[in-house]
Amino acid sequence: MLTTIGFDADDTLWQNESFFRLTQERFTTLLADHAAPDHLQARLLAAERRNLGHYGFGVKGFTLSMIETAVEVTEGRVPARVIGEILAAGREMLEHPIHLLPHARAAVTTLAAEYRVLLVTKGDLLDQERKLAQSGLGDLFDGVEIVSNKTPEIYKLVFARHGTGADQGMMVGNSLKSDVLPMLAAGGWGVHVPHEMTWELEAADAPRGDGRFHDLTDLSQLPDLVGRVAATHQT
Amino acid sequence: MLTTIGFDADDTLWQNESFFRLTQERFTTLLADHAAPDHLQARLLAAERRNLGHYGFGVKGFTLSMIETAVEVTEGRVPARVIGEILAAGREMLEHPIHLLPHARAAVTTLAAEYRVLLVTKGDLLDQERKLAQSGLGDLFDGVEIVSNKTPEIYKLVFARHGTGADQGMMVGNSLKSDVLPMLAAGGWGVHVPHEMTWELEAADAPRGDGRFHDLTDLSQLPDLVGRVAATHQT
Repeated sequence: MLTTIGFDADDTLWQNESFFRLTQERFTTLLADHAAPDHLQARLLAAERRNLGHYGFGVKGFTLSMIETAVEVTEGRVPARVIGEILAAGREMLEHPIHLLPHARAAVTTLAAEYRVLLVTKGDLLDQERKLAQSGLGDLFDGVEIVSNKTPEIYKLVFARHGTGADQGMMVGNSLKSDVLPMLAAGGWGVHVPHEMTWELEAADAPRGDGRFHDLTDLSQLPDLVGRVAATHQT
Repeated sequence: MLTTIGFDADDTLWQNESFFRLTQERFTTLLADHAAPDHLQARLLAAERRNLGHYGFGVKGFTLSMIETAVEVTEGRVPARVIGEILAAGREMLEHPIHLLPHARAAVTTLAAEYRVLLVTKGDLLDQERKLAQSGLGDLFDGVEIVSNKTPEIYKLVFARHGTGADQGMMVGNSLKSDVLPMLAAGGWGVHVPHEMTWELEAADAPRGDGRFHDLTDLSQLPDLVGRVAATHQT
């Protein structure tokens, strides 16, 4: 039986990675005199990976990792003006307006009429709250959880708190690693809706052959999929 | 009737502001050639206040505000080496071991036997989770909420979710502005346990004359106070 649908937020309901990419381009332009773009991006990704355990996910940690990379690749010669520009770029990310993805509002609205719908997202607390408020979708959700990581244990807790347990829940998102695989491990359904851009640290292989795994082209197909899953698993 | 006791975390259960002060001293030393300590501290506080709406509370935003202040006060001449030192100081804050405050463990343990006990804290998600895990108090709490701000609405939500409503709840903390006043406004009890160091942006006047306001010297007095409040307000 399926009672509760959880949605990832960034790059599932609204654009996110595109803002990171734009900022990263700005970053490589700012440091163009000091390092080649490819080298910079590799160093930045290494810093992000190294810092994830300290900073967690989100714009603030990304900004700190950009600054750290700027100091490193210039061997301590980056001008303070450039640091100021990186800070400004980070603050702009925290102010960018929300762009909902196609079919996001319709899919959540349709499913909210029949199921409990949740938002489960990683990132900075205040930033994710701001984006949800600005999305205009806030009132549709029966529960919102901003979490430091997406693990099977977290999904069990969240779907127990707001639903009827992870085994009666479905998680929908663009990240196989964060949205799909740990939800399957928690006993629920995992639905992958790929986004054209996904952060390298979120890459994973699709769990082909798992009966509770599904993938869709976009969110317009979600209500039908949910209907089919529910019809097959009625108690 | 009193059913649920909420505890603030930083500087109520464990030391926090002292780590910020130590880092701030390191910051003023690093920039000693560029500005007087008093001036630096004032500029840093202004940056923190200005950035609060973007960054929220916590170490990551504090680190970003230190970097911003360093760029500003040096008029763009701060050496990248100093920026690297500020980043390192921020990361050290995210790794510092927990120092429980006197009577914290005993007070929570005693009250957990008879009441629902909650932890309600602001700050960076991952950092606050780390500190709670390290404190060894995690299993005592019936609910943990890391929130972006502490408002009457937030307290109403949190005490409804984990307790029996804010009017049957008590919030205990070192900040009049965040722990006491909004909880009184939500209809609950507010108990102030001052800490020798409190961040300037958390200052507020004590609500003398409010029958649901109490202040204590330290947490050893809390179980007795709770007993008196409960005896007076039994249904």
